[in-house]
Amino acid sequence: MRVLVLGGDGFCGWPTSLYLSDRGHDVTILDNLSRRKIDVDLEVDSLTPIVPIGERLRAWQEVSGREIGFVNIDLATEYDRLASLLLELRPDAVVHFAEQRAAPYSMRSEKTKRYTVDNNVRATHNLLTAIVDTGVDASIVHLGTMGVYGYGWSGSAPIPEGYLTVKVDTPDGELEREILHPANPGSVYHMTKTLDQLLFAFYSKNDSLRITDLHQGIVWGTQTEQTARDERLINRFDYDGDYGTVLNRFLMQAAIKHPLTVHGSGGQTRAFIHIKDTVRCIELAIENPPTAGDKPLVRNQITEVHRVMDLAKLISDVTGADVAHLPNPRQEADENELVVRNDQFLALGLEPTTLSEGLLAEVREVAEKYKDRADLRKIVARSVWRKGMETAADLMTELP
Amino acid sequence: MRVLVLGGDGFCGWPTSLYLSDRGHDVTILDNLSRRKIDVDLEVDSLTPIVPIGERLRAWQEVSGREIGFVNIDLATEYDRLASLLLELRPDAVVHFAEQRAAPYSMRSEKTKRYTVDNNVRATHNLLTAIVDTGVDASIVHLGTMGVYGYGWSGSAPIPEGYLTVKVDTPDGELEREILHPANPGSVYHMTKTLDQLLFAFYSKNDSLRITDLHQGIVWGTQTEQTARDERLINRFDYDGDYGTVLNRFLMQAAIKHPLTVHGSGGQTRAFIHIKDTVRCIELAIENPPTAGDKPLVRNQITEVHRVMDLAKLISDVTGADVAHLPNPRQEADENELVVRNDQFLALGLEPTTLSEGLLAEVREVAEKYKDRADLRKIVARSVWRKGMETAADLMTELP
Repeated sequence: MRVLVLGGDGFCGWPTSLYLSDRGHDVTILDNLSRRKIDVDLEVDSLTPIVPIGERLRAWQEVSGREIGFVNIDLATEYDRLASLLLELRPDAVVHFAEQRAAPYSMRSEKTKRYTVDNNVRATHNLLTAIVDTGVDASIVHLGTMGVYGYGWSGSAPIPEGYLTVKVDTPDGELEREILHPANPGSVYHMTKTLDQLLFAFYSKNDSLRITDLHQGIVWGTQTEQTARDERLINRFDYDGDYGTVLNRFLMQAAIKHPLTVHGSGGQTRAFIHIKDTVRCIELAIENPPTAGDKPLVRNQITEVHRVMDLAKLISDVTGADVAHLPNPRQEADENELVVRNDQFLALGLEPTTLSEGLLAEVREVAEKYKDRADLRKIVARSVWRKGMETAADLMTELP
Repeated sequence: MRVLVLGGDGFCGWPTSLYLSDRGHDVTILDNLSRRKIDVDLEVDSLTPIVPIGERLRAWQEVSGREIGFVNIDLATEYDRLASLLLELRPDAVVHFAEQRAAPYSMRSEKTKRYTVDNNVRATHNLLTAIVDTGVDASIVHLGTMGVYGYGWSGSAPIPEGYLTVKVDTPDGELEREILHPANPGSVYHMTKTLDQLLFAFYSKNDSLRITDLHQGIVWGTQTEQTARDERLINRFDYDGDYGTVLNRFLMQAAIKHPLTVHGSGGQTRAFIHIKDTVRCIELAIENPPTAGDKPLVRNQITEVHRVMDLAKLISDVTGADVAHLPNPRQEADENELVVRNDQFLALGLEPTTLSEGLLAEVREVAEKYKDRADLRKIVARSVWRKGMETAADLMTELP
């Protein structure tokens, strides 16, 4: 298959690009390198050392003998170039990771709120209009988030894969209707993924575009089989308060003996997936698109569900790290239940990488190995959901 | 009250600004005059002669003794100026009409699709972030559309005002939930109003903004008591295939003896409201905002429901005009039922202007009076929902 990977230089996009290339697909990355540039502004860097994209691609060619194309393009603002590229490359599938993906960053300031909405909505909508206008017959696979469903709305009822059957009282009796699961986003970032869903629903209805929306859990882990083949191929690892996701943050904190930073009680329950499973899910998704005329196909891309405090305890038990309860910078329920349906990917043959297999390897091979690259003043989360909310001071400013 | 009217030079914004000023409110219009500029691109003009905004405002001061402020600003791209204006003017209410509002225009090309999404989403989101960031205590009244609900989803069940009670089966039994009515937009334009709803839901939840979303029907009529006081104050009247809405198009067509252009069978049923009632509803809305912490308050802003073919027959009977059935350029059901709740505005004291009162006056005082200004080659709708859909040739190219 010819595959375009939008945002193919990012944390999910890069290992996906390598995996698809390794599996014989003809991959071209479209990326404006925004993730690296945001690090410049935030004065942070991936814990793992990331080489420039050109060097990454040369290394991949050396190691695999396969070539991955790259175009530096801003999808939100360079529509005409996007349309030309579609006509030139005529992809069978477009994988769309090209969105600002950190909830804390999206809540940092009016500027980052606006950047997140402007970038994400326009990148998605430009892609949809370009596919319609060029007539290129490509299916779209988009990375959504479990956060579109929100947490707590369903109580102990399992969250379905995208659509919910409801009953409505009418003068003619009770009607049954299948609806897109009501949107309950917890941040501006998550909100943009709920906007994406409405864009997808419209363009699949009006233009018969074939769209898969993957509602992914929190990704953990760093390496895939491909990124581990050469240090120049290593995936990024974010540990800072804005881009570091909870489990990877704990792993890095454990490696440097920093207390594990639990926000609030830790009663928040979330769904997780290892990066190795993300890349496999993407291939399964591009190989199994919906039929033209169908509504968007929604698949929940998660493998395990855990309470944040349980994860902290698990890592604390294994590594001896302390646990610190910090003020929660988010507006969210202190505790929630979470049950998630993920039947579709299991039926397609996904074999999940479990937390118990991967945790220690991740601490040793990534977090410990690169711990000297950490800036300890970037660990505590400082972006708050409303002005004036409390945050913590740094817990540690130098390595022990 | 100090009121900002965003988009106050447009078809709804202008008469609203005059009405609120006349009622003693302190009004400032923010507008980039985009509606006039789109007419330049489309090579059409309002049937009624519109004078420049400066002249409009001077005329209003002459006639009423009251001053309305005006700032030429693009809300989608000039965030910093918007924030400064909020801090300087400290409005009690912001009325937000600043969105591209024609469904056919939004479907015309990839460019107009993208303009509609980029402009509408950014105008709304910039307003929300600016109110949060400046801390100005203004309620927001936004003009939404009945089109967010779609047509046909509810069958003969009345469309509620924004929220729908549904029942969901769970392992613990049946749960009742109130949800935002599922979104079923019929065009890119209508889709942007469904995106707005999710923006409003988030910002009312996260930041306790006070937001009213008015789901308006198709507006008809031209003049209000205020716009009729001087010809320089006249409201715009659009009759072209992109911006002309169905009832006003019929009235103009009847005046020039053009066949009434019914798309498809005319079985489409839609909700309507006279422009005089629109302006009254806006005042009722700014005077009755929700409480901080409440979810967005949704009010259906409609007064009557009619089948398009019935309207055509009514006007044909009164004026003798023929009826022409043209190919439908929209993807929509050929027929639908429509029952709409509008209890809220009636309870607040709205006394609807009925079709039977206003129709003939509208034909005589507006459509006939200005019929020589019509460009007959702009009457037939040419924007189609998908490439290759059929449209009709001009039915008439000169006045009889």
